[in-house]
Amino acid sequence: MRRLSLNQKTTNSWSVREAVDGCVRAGIEAIGLWREPVHEAGVSESAKLVRDAGLRVSSLCRGGFLTAHEGPERRRSIDDNRRAIEEAAELGAPCLVMVVGGLPEPGGSGQPVLPGSAAAMPAASASSPAAERDRDLPGARQRVADGIAELVPYAIERGVQLALEPMHPLYCADRGVLSTLGQALDIAEQHPAEAVGVVVDTFHVWWDPEVERQIARAAGRISSFQVCDWITPFPGDALLSRGMMGDGHIDFRYFRRLVEQAGYDGDIEVEIFHADIWAADPDTVVAQMKQRYTAHVLER
Amino acid sequence: MRRLSLNQKTTNSWSVREAVDGCVRAGIEAIGLWREPVHEAGVSESAKLVRDAGLRVSSLCRGGFLTAHEGPERRRSIDDNRRAIEEAAELGAPCLVMVVGGLPEPGGSGQPVLPGSAAAMPAASASSPAAERDRDLPGARQRVADGIAELVPYAIERGVQLALEPMHPLYCADRGVLSTLGQALDIAEQHPAEAVGVVVDTFHVWWDPEVERQIARAAGRISSFQVCDWITPFPGDALLSRGMMGDGHIDFRYFRRLVEQAGYDGDIEVEIFHADIWAADPDTVVAQMKQRYTAHVLER
Repeated sequence: MRRLSLNQKTTNSWSVREAVDGCVRAGIEAIGLWREPVHEAGVSESAKLVRDAGLRVSSLCRGGFLTAHEGPERRRSIDDNRRAIEEAAELGAPCLVMVVGGLPEPGGSGQPVLPGSAAAMPAASASSPAAERDRDLPGARQRVADGIAELVPYAIERGVQLALEPMHPLYCADRGVLSTLGQALDIAEQHPAEAVGVVVDTFHVWWDPEVERQIARAAGRISSFQVCDWITPFPGDALLSRGMMGDGHIDFRYFRRLVEQAGYDGDIEVEIFHADIWAADPDTVVAQMKQRYTAHVLER
Repeated sequence: MRRLSLNQKTTNSWSVREAVDGCVRAGIEAIGLWREPVHEAGVSESAKLVRDAGLRVSSLCRGGFLTAHEGPERRRSIDDNRRAIEEAAELGAPCLVMVVGGLPEPGGSGQPVLPGSAAAMPAASASSPAAERDRDLPGARQRVADGIAELVPYAIERGVQLALEPMHPLYCADRGVLSTLGQALDIAEQHPAEAVGVVVDTFHVWWDPEVERQIARAAGRISSFQVCDWITPFPGDALLSRGMMGDGHIDFRYFRRLVEQAGYDGDIEVEIFHADIWAADPDTVVAQMKQRYTAHVLER
């Protein structure tokens, strides 16, 4: 139980203060923070809340969105990632989770949309003629690698590891063009391990026929291990399709053993995006999370 | 335009006779058939309809569903695949598309559910305690390889190529545990090329960072090239999420060139599952398909 970390998204309605208090009540020792609620509370105040409660910060979500072509939007994104690195350092987060972005929107704003926020996903198909679409996926992936390379010196300076998160191919078009652990490692290995690592999130990687080999390859570069389940039937909203451990098809013990064999002994973060879980009482969700963690993630 | 093939699913409301007539009206020379409407029309009668109209059959969908553990359900599936091979031979289809099945359902019936049919997806989460779930994905994948090996002699005897279809990882849990072209080729290469090939369906493989290398590797084993688009926002029904070419994010010319560089010069099948397209007038859909094929798949 000492390695269990509550990712703030799992209790989406809680502020930083509420989430910190909830962890303390439940005896949870680590928390994964998100930038938006941290900004609402203030970065210094959030750092103090976590520190005073004696919690570890397991990660900060999220930087990234590096697929825009060179220009003002890309510069804004690089600048925002620098701020995110500073925030991670101030919060004592060992890593900044990088959601690298989808194919560039035609005339896109460059502002990532937070699931669960008031703004909806940009509806590219409605707003632009098909002919204007940027469909160059290899190009977008190259710009991610370039953006990471540009951020690495500052990440090293501030002592924050950039944690590349391969995302389920479901999100390739509009959220994350890094689709496999192998692909994330191809980028990470161009840099020192303390500067760039990878996130192993069961929801994103469980289907990958190469996953066993790639987790072994990731030894020394696993920044974060996150768990949530793949549930069926697939929920209508692709961004809110992640289930509580045990409600779906993923063998969590198998993945925990794989990351441990690769030398990872850090926190195990539970990060769930699901409308019903977000609507439930957060203390009840935390209690269920602890029970399911014991039943499905730990050894029997 | 001579390589364009109408997969029957694109005009889901049409019978075999109606689809054949629709192809003739539109000047389309090839058709991809599905077993259910072929059974409704009769296999011999369907073969005659296609032959008399002067059409080629580009593929027959579908065999597969080979993930059940040994027992009566698995035997029924193997028997059904033998019948599907016979039907493909009688219809003059060069290949039988294999949708290999998802993780075994606890107490599952073994009957694959056809999208668009009256029966809904089996709701595993509602019908069974989580503890009974079979979460052994590597095991399910091995049973697919074993099932293919068992079917190969009969496929050779009847002159039908089994076409392994890697499916988007979205479907890994409940429909197809083969998730990448590389994984499909690992199985196919255990057998003669005339017995086992692979389907390159843009919707299923477009996100794969290995796709260029794997399509090259598939030279001589590409059974079928299918096109439809990945659209966003992701539609609510995962089985009806495929879009018309040009409505989404896939660069079709890029994939057509890749399969051609690998020596494929066969039919290009358009297979779309989408509620709006199924609800539209089929002749209108076929006309739009021809226009989009010219605009997005062929060279400019």
